[in-house]
Amino acid sequence: MSQYSIAVLAGDGIGPEVMQEANKVLDAVEKKFNITLNRTAFPVGGYAIDTEGEALPSKTLLGCEQADAILFGSIGGPKWDTLPLEQRPERAALLTLRSHFDLFSNLRPARIYPGLEALSPLREDIAQSGVDVLVVRELTSGIYFGQPKGREGEGEEEFAFDTMRYSKREIRRIAVAAFEAAQKRRGKVTSVDKANVLLTSRLWREIAEEVAKDYPDVELEHIYIDNATMQIMKNPAQFDVMLCSNLFGDIVSDECAMMTGSMGLLPSASMNEDGFGLYEPAGGSAPDIAGQGIANPIAQILSAAMMLRFSMNLGEAADAIEKAVVATLEAGVLTGELLPADKREQASSTSQVGDEIV
Amino acid sequence: MSQYSIAVLAGDGIGPEVMQEANKVLDAVEKKFNITLNRTAFPVGGYAIDTEGEALPSKTLLGCEQADAILFGSIGGPKWDTLPLEQRPERAALLTLRSHFDLFSNLRPARIYPGLEALSPLREDIAQSGVDVLVVRELTSGIYFGQPKGREGEGEEEFAFDTMRYSKREIRRIAVAAFEAAQKRRGKVTSVDKANVLLTSRLWREIAEEVAKDYPDVELEHIYIDNATMQIMKNPAQFDVMLCSNLFGDIVSDECAMMTGSMGLLPSASMNEDGFGLYEPAGGSAPDIAGQGIANPIAQILSAAMMLRFSMNLGEAADAIEKAVVATLEAGVLTGELLPADKREQASSTSQVGDEIV
Ligand SMILES: CC(C)[C@H](C(=O)O)[C@@H](O)C(=O)O
Ligand SMILES: CC(C)[C@H](C(=O)O)[C@@H](O)C(=O)O
Repeated sequence: MSQYSIAVLAGDGIGPEVMQEANKVLDAVEKKFNITLNRTAFPVGGYAIDTEGEALPSKTLLGCEQADAILFGSIGGPKWDTLPLEQRPERAALLTLRSHFDLFSNLRPARIYPGLEALSPLREDIAQSGVDVLVVRELTSGIYFGQPKGREGEGEEEFAFDTMRYSKREIRRIAVAAFEAAQKRRGKVTSVDKANVLLTSRLWREIAEEVAKDYPDVELEHIYIDNATMQIMKNPAQFDVMLCSNLFGDIVSDECAMMTGSMGLLPSASMNEDGFGLYEPAGGSAPDIAGQGIANPIAQILSAAMMLRFSMNLGEAADAIEKAVVATLEAGVLTGELLPADKREQASSTSQVGDEIV
Repeated sequence: MSQYSIAVLAGDGIGPEVMQEANKVLDAVEKKFNITLNRTAFPVGGYAIDTEGEALPSKTLLGCEQADAILFGSIGGPKWDTLPLEQRPERAALLTLRSHFDLFSNLRPARIYPGLEALSPLREDIAQSGVDVLVVRELTSGIYFGQPKGREGEGEEEFAFDTMRYSKREIRRIAVAAFEAAQKRRGKVTSVDKANVLLTSRLWREIAEEVAKDYPDVELEHIYIDNATMQIMKNPAQFDVMLCSNLFGDIVSDECAMMTGSMGLLPSASMNEDGFGLYEPAGGSAPDIAGQGIANPIAQILSAAMMLRFSMNLGEAADAIEKAVVATLEAGVLTGELLPADKREQASSTSQVGDEIV
């Protein structure tokens, strides 16, 4: 019997309660597919700061190193916002994990589910045009990690600086990830850059063109980041896979997520070259609704499905989860935020949605 | 009688035809307010490449230096897209003008006009929530101009790099511009940054806080760029003035412009510390509709109004133009792109709209 081990980092806010539902679903997968998914929980984020004194305790990092994948909840909240930046949950835990495990390939799907178009902030006809985008974001380089960065000079001429930096190798491997993904989807990659201004973007464009030659069945388009933020609003159905650097991917993926109007449904994967990955919902820790049993567990459950697919090669199990989610949405078993204001009393709880998917 | 001189750079595409309407309106202003607005036309952009061999001929630059302001049309088009980047109209003319005249303060208003809500790609209720944003973008520093930038190394480790850089002085003067603008509007500045990742953003936030102390009547909020692109879609009415660095302002102002759904109505101003400025429509040269007499001249006319207000201190004349534009919109004298598809045959031509405003 196949065995896998998963480091479960539920984190803060709604993290623990939606993770509980993902665990239920993974229990069901174990039985149905006759596999073992050993899960060990580790503290992370604000909870780890409170209990262990730091956002990413060494035992958590060690547990992640020994696992086949990390299933991540969400971290942060107002309680820890006053800490110095370097100690805050987002940077101390999330950016450190990305960089430590070289999780360069970040996949963020954004879809408007049939029947849920009214949730989108876009005009009805645009929301109904069949929106299904995959943002492929480079996650371990660019201006997030580029050196040098610092502060120099004095008085009013004192200045701060950051370096945006990309090597051919770094661009090539994320471009390959985008083209591979497009081959399994609708065969189109839109590469986002600012090649009319940035040298990193020119190299980005050059390598994207090179990689495209190995994928004659995939169409490559280039778009400037400023125009991309416009087109996502005006005609999002034109996009299949959007290939982005770290900073532009941060912006584009969030705009795409918001455009669906249902952030609680969106998973994400962050992987390295060995198939190791961190899987987490696109939304945040939502401290305002934590502990009330009303949070949507679907993003967490779909993150678990991505984990099975990409880190454990269990495509069938992932398919089963994704089908169950679609069936649950179609059956109208929905948490409150997916319902119109006047139908909120029909809302299902976090655990009811989890049970239905199981 | 007061005299002013204006360098008129109509440029490419629809530039010349919308400029003609702006000139008509300025003629009317001369009479009504008993002033002289001396205008001299100079070649710029692709037209200048074709006729003079370069996008910004020295006589054009000299003409701008001798004027009180530049009224700019639009430049670029597919014909010049194959030129080396440094010679292309956008970079060789526009970025050079910005930097040569130190036009650091870029104002880009974006408004959903009452009655034109249906043009917005946003959901009806959001489009009708009263959207009126002013993006204040830093235009002569940041990653657009930061040094060093280059390319180094070999083989797959060859890398490109750009530098994002801001001094206290550069941040302070654009922050002051934003707070001054907010005082005359609804008293709120939202500063856009990525202070959880970038050192330039941390300095940005620090200086914004310092400047805020001099404007106790203006409220200051900070927002991350990724969240900003989401909030512009979800709830744009929350914003009054958005204070942005060069790159983030490029992104935010274009998203705001698209959100209104009526790019043909949006002017912009780019000014230096002496009140000298370049005034241009937010939209591009639209080569696909050039020469047909159907382009909307309003963005160009409102750019002329901004010029009168900011570079010539002729607030009354600017008010008069802006009122005439609103009256023209209310009277339904509209170019085709502002009308629903089934009412396009009622469209007014470029010159009819210009006449009505006159
Ligand atoms: C928390 C923050 C540093 C992070 C990022 O910018 O990458 C977040 O916005 C994300 O997109 O995962
Ligand atoms: C043409 C381009 C260099 C320019 C910019 O990025 O500033 C344009 O997008 C703008 O916003 O005026």
